[in-house]
Amino acid sequence: MLLKSLREEVLEANLELVRRGLVLYTFGNASAISRTDGFVAIKPSGVPYEQLTPHHMVVTTLDGKVVEGDFRPSSICQLTFSSIGNFLPSAALPTRTRNSPPRGRRRGGPSRVSGLPMPTISMDRFQSLKTLHPRKWPETTRENTGAAICRLFKDSDPMAIPAALVAGHAPFCWGANAAEAAHNAVILEYVARMSYYTLAIHSESKSLPRELHDKHYLRKHGDNASYGQGPTR
Amino acid sequence: MLLKSLREEVLEANLELVRRGLVLYTFGNASAISRTDGFVAIKPSGVPYEQLTPHHMVVTTLDGKVVEGDFRPSSICQLTFSSIGNFLPSAALPTRTRNSPPRGRRRGGPSRVSGLPMPTISMDRFQSLKTLHPRKWPETTRENTGAAICRLFKDSDPMAIPAALVAGHAPFCWGANAAEAAHNAVILEYVARMSYYTLAIHSESKSLPRELHDKHYLRKHGDNASYGQGPTR
Amino acid sequence: MLLKSLREEVLEANLELVRRGLVLYTFGNASAISRTDGFVAIKPSGVPYEQLTPHHMVVTTLDGKVVEGDFRPSSICQLTFSSIGNFLPSAALPTRTRNSPPRGRRRGGPSRVSGLPMPTISMDRFQSLKTLHPRKWPETTRENTGAAICRLFKDSDPMAIPAALVAGHAPFCWGANAAEAAHNAVILEYVARMSYYTLAIHSESKSLPRELHDKHYLRKHGDNASYGQGPTR
Amino acid sequence: MLLKSLREEVLEANLELVRRGLVLYTFGNASAISRTDGFVAIKPSGVPYEQLTPHHMVVTTLDGKVVEGDFRPSSICQLTFSSIGNFLPSAALPTRTRNSPPRGRRRGGPSRVSGLPMPTISMDRFQSLKTLHPRKWPETTRENTGAAICRLFKDSDPMAIPAALVAGHAPFCWGANAAEAAHNAVILEYVARMSYYTLAIHSESKSLPRELHDKHYLRKHGDNASYGQGPTR
Repeated sequence: MLLKSLREEVLEANLELVRRGLVLYTFGNASAISRTDGFVAIKPSGVPYEQLTPHHMVVTTLDGKVVEGDFRPSSICQLTFSSIGNFLPSAALPTRTRNSPPRGRRRGGPSRVSGLPMPTISMDRFQSLKTLHPRKWPETTRENTGAAICRLFKDSDPMAIPAALVAGHAPFCWGANAAEAAHNAVILEYVARMSYYTLAIHSESKSLPRELHDKHYLRKHGDNASYGQGPTR
Repeated sequence: MLLKSLREEVLEANLELVRRGLVLYTFGNASAISRTDGFVAIKPSGVPYEQLTPHHMVVTTLDGKVVEGDFRPSSICQLTFSSIGNFLPSAALPTRTRNSPPRGRRRGGPSRVSGLPMPTISMDRFQSLKTLHPRKWPETTRENTGAAICRLFKDSDPMAIPAALVAGHAPFCWGANAAEAAHNAVILEYVARMSYYTLAIHSESKSLPRELHDKHYLRKHGDNASYGQGPTR
Repeated sequence: MLLKSLREEVLEANLELVRRGLVLYTFGNASAISRTDGFVAIKPSGVPYEQLTPHHMVVTTLDGKVVEGDFRPSSICQLTFSSIGNFLPSAALPTRTRNSPPRGRRRGGPSRVSGLPMPTISMDRFQSLKTLHPRKWPETTRENTGAAICRLFKDSDPMAIPAALVAGHAPFCWGANAAEAAHNAVILEYVARMSYYTLAIHSESKSLPRELHDKHYLRKHGDNASYGQGPTR
Repeated sequence: MLLKSLREEVLEANLELVRRGLVLYTFGNASAISRTDGFVAIKPSGVPYEQLTPHHMVVTTLDGKVVEGDFRPSSICQLTFSSIGNFLPSAALPTRTRNSPPRGRRRGGPSRVSGLPMPTISMDRFQSLKTLHPRKWPETTRENTGAAICRLFKDSDPMAIPAALVAGHAPFCWGANAAEAAHNAVILEYVARMSYYTLAIHSESKSLPRELHDKHYLRKHGDNASYGQGPTR
C-alpha cells in the first residue's frame, strides 16, 4: 500500500472533523500531499466516515489521476487540486510545508454563513481572513473555485491565513499537514461561532484594534513567539 | 410477521431521526410503503423510541386499515396517507421508488420556524424548496395537510424536492426508501440551521445565484452526476 | 423510609431534567405531593444531582416542616409550597392529580428569556401560555412568587396550561405526577427554543391561527382525543 | 512533588472546564495559589487536556519563576500573575481565600462576545458584572490586562463579583479555590448564554429590578443566606 502513513494521517484528520461536529454524513473531507512522491492521499467520495480505513484512501497524482485505490476520490479534492500547488508555492513556505501542503475542508455551521465580514476575535491562528464572494468571480467550471482562491491569495502568505471563506459554501482550510489543517478548520468554526453571536446581537460590531490583534497573533508566530512547549527563554 | 424487512427499515429510519436529534420523546415518525403488497409499515403512536422493535410497527392497507399490529399507528401517517399515493405517481419515479415511496417526518428545530424563505445554501439534495403556509390553505380536517401538500407539488417532481416545509409545523420529507427519507430530513434540518444563522445576522440575504445552485444539484443528480462510488467515467 | 415510591418518582423526575440538559449543577428541582398522606417529597438543597438517591429526598408537611430527611429541602420548594395547594384545587383536577399534584422546575435556556410573548407553535401539551412579569407584581417576600402564580391562574385550568413563565426566572411546570411535570418542562423548553428561533429572524411573528392550535391540542386532550395507545375507536 | 494536592485541584478544575465545553484544544486554563507556600500551580502551556496529569502542572513563585516542573507554564497565568495578588487583597477576603485565591480562565462562547452589557438574570453568584473594554485601557504590554482588571476592581469586592468580562477576550474568573473558580466560569457562561438569547430577540432588554436581583444574591450570600446544606435555622 502506497503512502501508508500519509493515508493514516488523512484518515485521522477526517475523523477529527467528524469528532468536532464539522461534517454531516459524507460531506467535507481532508486530504494531504506528499511533495517528495508527487502524490496526494484523498478521502473517497460518498463513503460513510464510520466505515473509513486507511485502505479506503485514494492515492492520486498531482493532476488527479488515480494511482492506487479501489474507490473514486472525493470530487472536491479534484476540484481544488491543481490550485493548491499554486497557492502554496515552495518559496513562501517552510520546508515541511513544501513537502506536505494538505488542506481540510468541511461544510456547515456559522463559518459557512453569508459573506459578511467576521469580527475577528483574538485569532491566534489567523493573521486575518479572506472571503470569496461567489457573485464576484466567474463561476463556470469546477476548477474555478480553486483558481479563484489562488487569485485571492496572490499577494498574501497562505500559511499566515490558512483558510478561505467562500460565501454560500464551506470554508477551505489548510496547514503544514493534515492534522493542522483539521485543527485550523475546527478553530475557524469556533471563531466563526463567536463572530455569529456578536453580529446577532450587535450588527455594527467592529474588529478589535489591529495592535491587540497583532499581539495575540505574534504571541504564537514569528521570532518572538512565546506560546507552547518550545525551549524556555 | 408481515413485511419483516420493511418493518426493520422503518424502525431503523425512526432511530436515525432520534440519533440525529430530530425528535423529542414520541414526536415525529418515519414510515414506508410496499407498492407490491399494497401495505404500509408505520411507527405506533405514542410509544417511546427506546422501546421500539420491528414487532411494534403497524402494517396497514393503503387507506389506513390495520392489517397486522398490536398498536395504534401514528395518527400523522393516517393524516398524509392517501395523498402520498398521489404526489409520488408511478410514472414520474424510478422503479424502486414506485415500490417503496415512504416518507420521514419530524418536529422541531430551525426547519420548523416561521414561513420565511430559506436562503437555499448549496443544497445538493434539494433542487429547490416549497413551503405550505397554513393561512393560505383551508384547514378543516386532518386530511387537508396531505391534500395541501399534493396541490403544492402538482406541477413539480417530488423526488427532485423531497420535502415540504409547513409553517408552524415540522416539515414532511420523503425519498426512495425510509432510509433516504430520514437522510433527507437530517440534511434539510442542517441546511435550515445554516439558513437560520444567515437570516439572524443578515435578514436581507438572498439565495445563491441559480447557476451555482444548479451546478451543485446536477453534480449529484441526472445524467452528468459525478459524485459517489458509481462506475468511474 | 416514608413515601419510598414517591421519593423514587421525584428522584427520577429530577434525573430526567438533568438528562435533557435543563439543569446546571444544583439549579432547579422537581418535587411531588401525596394528598392522601399530606406530605411532599422534595429534592434537597445544593446536593449535586449525580450523588442523589431516594434517601436524599426530604419529606415535609404541606406547610414545609421536615418530617423525615437528613438534608435541608430546596428552598424553592418551600417558596412555592403553600400556593401549589391553591392553584391545583381538587375540584378542577382528575383523581390521580388530586392525589399527587407535583411540579417540576428548572432554570436556563430560551424559556427563561425576557418576558416576550412566545409564538405558540403547535403545542399539543399547552392550551396556551401565561407569563408572570416581575415588574407587575409586588415582590416583597419569597412567598409572593407562588401567590402571584396563583392569581395568574385564578380563572384558568392549571392542568390545561401546566406551566407559568416567569420573566427573568425559570418557568414553573407541573403535571399529574412528577414524571409528567418533568415531561412538560422538557417540552416547554423545546417549544421555547423554536419560538426563540422564530423571533430571532422574524420579530413580528404571530401565533398560529387559533383553530389550528385547537386542532392540535384537542387531538390529545378531551373527549375526542385520538393520539396514543388508548383503546382504538 | 511540591504541592501535590494543589496540583490535583488545579488539574480537576481544568478538566471541569473541558467537561463543560468551555475550552477548545489547549485554550484556557485554571490555576491556584498557595499563600502559605508563596507558590502557584499552573497548567502547562499548549499541552492537550486529555494528556494532563498532576505531574504536568508547573509550580512557580509569585513572580512567575518556575520552581518545579518539566513544562513551560501557560503564558496567560504569567500575564495576570502579579495583579491577582493585588485585586485579591488579604483584608477584603475570608481566610481560606487568602490562602488560595486562584482563578479560572477560558475562551469562547457568548460570554466572550462584544462588550455589550449583559442583562443580569437572577445571578445568585454575581452581585453584578464588570466589563473591561480594550479600547478604554492602554494596551502596550502583557501585564496590562491584569493591571487593568485591578483598576476595574479598585473600589469593589472581587469575591462578590468573581469575574471580569473582557471585550474581545475570554472572561477571567476566580473564587475561593480552583474548583469554585471553574464553577463560577461555568455559571457565567450559562448566564451569558441566557443574556445572549434575550438580546438576540429583544435588544432593548433591561436588567431585572435591583431589589429582585438582591433578593436572589442575598439568598446565598451574607448573614441571612438560606441556601444549601448549612446548619438549619
